[in-house]
Amino acid sequence: MVHSRVLQSLSTPILGHLDPLFLAVMDDIQHLLRETFRTSNPLTIAVSGTGSAGMEAAITNLIEPGDTAIVGMNGVFGGRIASMVERCGGTVVRLEVPWGSVIDPHMLRERLAKSHRVKAVALVHAETSTGAWQPLQDIAALCHDHEALLIVDAVTSLGGVPVEVDAWDIDVCFSGTQKCLSCPPGLAPLTWNRRAMDAIRKRTHPCQSWYFDLALVSEYWTEGARAYHHTAPISMLYGLREALRLVHEEGLETRFARHRTNGTALLSGLTELGLTPLPDPDHRLPMLNCVRLPSRVEDVSTRTRLLEEYGIEIGGGHGPLRGKVWRIGLMGESSQQAHVLTLLNALEDIFARSGWLSTPGIAVQAAVEGFRNPYDSTRRTA
Amino acid sequence: MVHSRVLQSLSTPILGHLDPLFLAVMDDIQHLLRETFRTSNPLTIAVSGTGSAGMEAAITNLIEPGDTAIVGMNGVFGGRIASMVERCGGTVVRLEVPWGSVIDPHMLRERLAKSHRVKAVALVHAETSTGAWQPLQDIAALCHDHEALLIVDAVTSLGGVPVEVDAWDIDVCFSGTQKCLSCPPGLAPLTWNRRAMDAIRKRTHPCQSWYFDLALVSEYWTEGARAYHHTAPISMLYGLREALRLVHEEGLETRFARHRTNGTALLSGLTELGLTPLPDPDHRLPMLNCVRLPSRVEDVSTRTRLLEEYGIEIGGGHGPLRGKVWRIGLMGESSQQAHVLTLLNALEDIFARSGWLSTPGIAVQAAVEGFRNPYDSTRRTA
Repeated sequence: MVHSRVLQSLSTPILGHLDPLFLAVMDDIQHLLRETFRTSNPLTIAVSGTGSAGMEAAITNLIEPGDTAIVGMNGVFGGRIASMVERCGGTVVRLEVPWGSVIDPHMLRERLAKSHRVKAVALVHAETSTGAWQPLQDIAALCHDHEALLIVDAVTSLGGVPVEVDAWDIDVCFSGTQKCLSCPPGLAPLTWNRRAMDAIRKRTHPCQSWYFDLALVSEYWTEGARAYHHTAPISMLYGLREALRLVHEEGLETRFARHRTNGTALLSGLTELGLTPLPDPDHRLPMLNCVRLPSRVEDVSTRTRLLEEYGIEIGGGHGPLRGKVWRIGLMGESSQQAHVLTLLNALEDIFARSGWLSTPGIAVQAAVEGFRNPYDSTRRTA
Repeated sequence: MVHSRVLQSLSTPILGHLDPLFLAVMDDIQHLLRETFRTSNPLTIAVSGTGSAGMEAAITNLIEPGDTAIVGMNGVFGGRIASMVERCGGTVVRLEVPWGSVIDPHMLRERLAKSHRVKAVALVHAETSTGAWQPLQDIAALCHDHEALLIVDAVTSLGGVPVEVDAWDIDVCFSGTQKCLSCPPGLAPLTWNRRAMDAIRKRTHPCQSWYFDLALVSEYWTEGARAYHHTAPISMLYGLREALRLVHEEGLETRFARHRTNGTALLSGLTELGLTPLPDPDHRLPMLNCVRLPSRVEDVSTRTRLLEEYGIEIGGGHGPLRGKVWRIGLMGESSQQAHVLTLLNALEDIFARSGWLSTPGIAVQAAVEGFRNPYDSTRRTA
């Protein structure tokens, strides 16, 4: 869901991409993005494309032929990063764990020690395909001990759980607008620290992408420079500014607590229906609940009924999880008590009519109790 | 300017990018884009980025290391294409002519004959930095005689002058939404024929971009396939559909005539002010009028006054034309009699107050006469 203020902002008549009034919009966005990423990085911008464009901007600007990158592989998005590294002529060291798990720091330390000259380590903070919440606090120090940069995919986490770019010393962090920022898809927030900027300066090959070349793009976003690169997506930037203002007005801590409470309540209800979380208790994302399907529950027909009869869309499993899990998003504006209760009620109804549930009401009741005691949780904070 | 129907469509609540209702929006866009490009190419889509993203999608999918491309260099955008070809590991044969001129077919024929195995020829149909209108009718046959593909940058031309993808046998053609389609910037229409599809299949290296990889992106746009690649920019696609509907409702021929009439009338007025067109009479774009500044007329201060006192933005010169020309757009919704007259009136006012004009009223009068006799023109149709 997108807040009506954001939808309305998209209809604002457009300005020229070098109009002083529009440059002020960009300044607002940079300021608000720094606040959201909790960073003072000057290069904090919105890439002109969806979340995967942010990923490609990160990889294409850092990785050049001959570089090695260690990539955490525990879902769809690690695989995507690996593909991008290889397309840049880089070598991928795959850190593979089962889908639903997270990358263990000990495993990373070992791999860093064994590998020769690793340029970057890339991890997915919130793996949308599995609901796994990757801890990041101690990772950067490990990487920097081996002179590797840390790249973090925060597409689904930004605005929903803490993303502490400066405190955790993340070098490159990218996100998308359509998850917990509740702006329509179309832009990729990206922040880039001094260490990562130095890596761009030390490149021996030109960046293979012109569109994503940060050495050029950053000129447009830098106050005082403002050199034309490509025409900015004006309307989407209006939308992002308004979405970030809403994040700012709510406050990050309040927003994180809301996501945690609603995620926890939903999970309490789902558990009563026999749908158990895939990740272990330490690593369950509150905005993306990935639950295993009991064998009696039909996957596709149930999701179709949810969409057609109740207007609720939930995700199925990708790759090895196809047919085995559901992925239920409670992101940004969509993270609401009413959504939790409506979904659980709809599921109880379908389950009861299908003979998969004998005690109607228990899921909703569990969620209601969850809202009363939000911190008596089945989910610990990563 | 963007029509209010397009601005309003951007505020439509968003759908999921695989929701059947949204897939119907994509089908509408493909249908309307084919009509606008005058093509039956199945692969006719909107790339998720601004016009330059369309350019990068075209080059990155066609050019691989070792390939040679002939690039017409007569303004900013030929230079951009050349840079992209080189970043793909390709070799650029530069076909250089003075800014404001177009590429002569004889020159291209000679260069094709002299060069060894040219993979593609890239030309800019409407060069926004010079106002030059590149003829294309006989170019494709030349290219195909040498087994080279023809790539056309139609960013500024699509929807303003004829772009006949099938009739002219163009292999790859890309555009942007924010010029004569009058949709905000953020998407790049792209069409790709069978010959170009074959070239993708024959690649020996993978496409170096994941985000722009048409072998993957096309799966999402193909009816029946619809495989998830990256999340589509939903709101911008609503906007593009509405903008294309407006093009369809007006009719291409009517729209072209409107651009021609207004461009011609503007030029008649500008000529009276001593501002003479840069390109020769055979190659003057109607939607982008690039005129030389007489030495008495100050560049930056006049444009600043236009913006601040009259709310009118016109472009200055790029590169070798900096300080020497103005570029005045009359694109899509902005191509209106009222705009022509308002600008000429403002210029007369500033010129008279600055002592650069002795007969106020002559420019407006010339334009009014131009509207009366729209086809008695100083501009021939390319």
